[in-house]
Amino acid sequence: MAERITPRNTNYSDWYIDIVTQAKLADYSPVKGSMVIRPRGYALWEKIQSNLDRMFKETGHVNAYFPLLIPQSYLQKEAEHVEGFAPELAVVTHGGGSELEEPLVIRPTSETIIWSMYKKWIQSYRDLPLLINQWANVLRWEKRTRLFLRTSEFLWQEGHTAHASSQEAEEETLRMLEVYKTFAEDYLALPVLTGVKSQSEKFAGAVNTYAIEALMQDKKALQAGTSHFLGQNFAKAFDVTYQTPEGTLDYVWASSWGVSTRLIGALIMAHSDDNGLVLPPRIAPTKAVIVPIFRNKNKDQVLTYARSVFAALQETLGNELNTVIIDEDDSNSPGWKFAEWEMVGVPVRIEIGPRDMENQKVVIVRRDTGEKEIVPAAEAAGRVQQLMEEIQSNLLQRARTFRDQNTFQASTYDEFKAYFNSDGGGGFVTAYWNGDPAVEARVKEETKATIRVLPFGNEETAQGNTCIFTGEPAKYAAVFAKAY
Amino acid sequence: MAERITPRNTNYSDWYIDIVTQAKLADYSPVKGSMVIRPRGYALWEKIQSNLDRMFKETGHVNAYFPLLIPQSYLQKEAEHVEGFAPELAVVTHGGGSELEEPLVIRPTSETIIWSMYKKWIQSYRDLPLLINQWANVLRWEKRTRLFLRTSEFLWQEGHTAHASSQEAEEETLRMLEVYKTFAEDYLALPVLTGVKSQSEKFAGAVNTYAIEALMQDKKALQAGTSHFLGQNFAKAFDVTYQTPEGTLDYVWASSWGVSTRLIGALIMAHSDDNGLVLPPRIAPTKAVIVPIFRNKNKDQVLTYARSVFAALQETLGNELNTVIIDEDDSNSPGWKFAEWEMVGVPVRIEIGPRDMENQKVVIVRRDTGEKEIVPAAEAAGRVQQLMEEIQSNLLQRARTFRDQNTFQASTYDEFKAYFNSDGGGGFVTAYWNGDPAVEARVKEETKATIRVLPFGNEETAQGNTCIFTGEPAKYAAVFAKAY
Repeated sequence: MAERITPRNTNYSDWYIDIVTQAKLADYSPVKGSMVIRPRGYALWEKIQSNLDRMFKETGHVNAYFPLLIPQSYLQKEAEHVEGFAPELAVVTHGGGSELEEPLVIRPTSETIIWSMYKKWIQSYRDLPLLINQWANVLRWEKRTRLFLRTSEFLWQEGHTAHASSQEAEEETLRMLEVYKTFAEDYLALPVLTGVKSQSEKFAGAVNTYAIEALMQDKKALQAGTSHFLGQNFAKAFDVTYQTPEGTLDYVWASSWGVSTRLIGALIMAHSDDNGLVLPPRIAPTKAVIVPIFRNKNKDQVLTYARSVFAALQETLGNELNTVIIDEDDSNSPGWKFAEWEMVGVPVRIEIGPRDMENQKVVIVRRDTGEKEIVPAAEAAGRVQQLMEEIQSNLLQRARTFRDQNTFQASTYDEFKAYFNSDGGGGFVTAYWNGDPAVEARVKEETKATIRVLPFGNEETAQGNTCIFTGEPAKYAAVFAKAY
Repeated sequence: MAERITPRNTNYSDWYIDIVTQAKLADYSPVKGSMVIRPRGYALWEKIQSNLDRMFKETGHVNAYFPLLIPQSYLQKEAEHVEGFAPELAVVTHGGGSELEEPLVIRPTSETIIWSMYKKWIQSYRDLPLLINQWANVLRWEKRTRLFLRTSEFLWQEGHTAHASSQEAEEETLRMLEVYKTFAEDYLALPVLTGVKSQSEKFAGAVNTYAIEALMQDKKALQAGTSHFLGQNFAKAFDVTYQTPEGTLDYVWASSWGVSTRLIGALIMAHSDDNGLVLPPRIAPTKAVIVPIFRNKNKDQVLTYARSVFAALQETLGNELNTVIIDEDDSNSPGWKFAEWEMVGVPVRIEIGPRDMENQKVVIVRRDTGEKEIVPAAEAAGRVQQLMEEIQSNLLQRARTFRDQNTFQASTYDEFKAYFNSDGGGGFVTAYWNGDPAVEARVKEETKATIRVLPFGNEETAQGNTCIFTGEPAKYAAVFAKAY
């Protein structure tokens, strides 16, 4: 590549942006706060989308599509919801050449428009559960943006389910949290913590918000997905009741859950290095690239040989557009190409030169470790197939080790501060907390660390222990981190 | 179904809306002009999307995503483009609580934002061709809307390609027209006419617009997809040049092409009947439904038998959610269920009662013809598989026959008018035309018929013939129709 990537240790934030732009994943758009997702970045989103979509369908969900524009008055029907989202709204005041009677907002999330429809569709317990997901763009006005991680417009999916009981809705909320966790670990190779958010960090309009939280290489946490138990809040706001089998009327119970193009940011920051993107094979659009090495005199023979390896790889890995690439471009040197394909994050590179051809061998280079091995051409496809699994599990293991090495328990507030204030500090820090939001706010102000989750079962752990911030009896064992 | 569908002969327009709403494909939204695509309607879009997306990739295209909001000034850079779209814009004037310095419009189509990015991405002939597609929502403010056929917001795909020569861009334009035609015929069972639009009907900003045009059962035409040769219009508007291999600079050549959720409207209107939706099997989300017929005393046995047939069908047709359905609900009668699944358009219904169980048979009913056949249970899955192909080709054949029976050549303007003014009139009417837009406008005013396409090779056909509207020498053999 012509330009160099800023090393992680020099400036982590510049390193991240260099990778996004130089690997051509995304670009800045002329509209402030919006991004353009370039083909290489969008291919990652397609992989995320197709796998998650299958998992949603396997758990009984169907897709639908609701309008982009929502009457402003709808958001006001749920008090906490409008308070949370009002500052982030983009407002359409004119349409078709005239001023509108009522302004419309671009959806920041779709609970309100969807529950206005659920009122029409739900009458009886026979209409429940209603398990709908939507793939869509949403917009939340942002002043400070960062490609993939925080942009005004982003792509996401939002599940919105309706149930006949509180228990069913809570089960759904936790089921989808588990789907997110499985997806993050099995596909993105991203180990995640799960648990419930503190009340001050929950979704505006939810009873409880559950989240998956991942640790980035700069030891900051990233919230990678959320699943909300909404209770009867939106059913009450939109007067959605159902007739029970006994003939009585009750408000409907709800969940909503979502992940977004932010996952691409998490993917980049978790695995990549100073040479560029590193991608888990299950999510990599291109699984392997072949770089033939030739001079004019042996070009034809080397290419013929390389193409036979290419065909074998396509047969094993798939022959869709770009699943396997052979880079025959002769205007760049092999060295330039190696760097280019490393930058782009292709999990395996196969180098084939005249000597390899003579020996009927190929050189296979792993992107994750840089290890090289020479294998007989006839075994290349099989070996690359194996490497897909090896690299996938190595990346998960590596990220898990990194997270474990950066997970601490603080027994005093001084110790707690030391974890976050030291040079290169950070990580997940568990601390006993009395549950007081004022204490949580003070800690945030003093250390910039926030509660990422209250892990499942943390209240039992906390019993009999002391809040490290106040000395009072602890109610929770909370996991804190500085976060994106 | 509780409600009846208005028969086609009574009121075609009511018939259409009854099907859309009663088959739960779409619903009206609280925002005027927008629709909600319900799960059964969205499942059709998913089928359209996955097949088209594969065809786009097979022809070398990749997907990307560009911003929803476009600076208003961008549209003004191409004079015809802004003139065409300005009356249909929704305008965002406020964001994040403040008035914006420059209003942003919601994309009515994305040429302008995309070409502003292509300026950054294209420098040399080595960057060409650039073959990008986007799946997105767009918004064009509409006063008179109809579910799927014309709504303010709709879902579509828009391909935007950049080329080093006029010829390449034109080839791409025609290649994608052919992809649309193949898709319409092979998947939607929709025979289509292809050709170029007259200059007054072309896309605002194009040099030429090509279209696929289908005939609906009320003998009105529906434009089902368009492919535009944009020449250098947008390259000039956004100053996008490239360095040629010879080192000179030239403006880039372009195409754009799109189909939308309107295709679902076409699908409904082309094949459905007074009992509801009729779907071509390749696009039907549910391929077959099993309705067990039982009383309390034999319920368990019949269900066990029916479930074994269900398992065999899933093995043959696929076991994804809803590909095959077994309707075990015992709160509705079999007759009610038959009507319900006909309404929804499932291509094949399998009835299984106690007597069928005794004989180890099942009753198979085709949705397209209503024909029944009794086959041994062991052969059911194989027979249903066969029927998928038979129904698919029957629907295409039926639509083709209908179109051919309603395709005419008018030798005089009186004859031309008679085709359109007679009761139950309509269809595709070919007429020689001198090419004068004023004549085209007068014909439209007097008959409501517009030129749908100038078929490929029509100019040769026209040679030596007389314009039926003016008596002057004909330049084109144009195909007219009343259209949606």
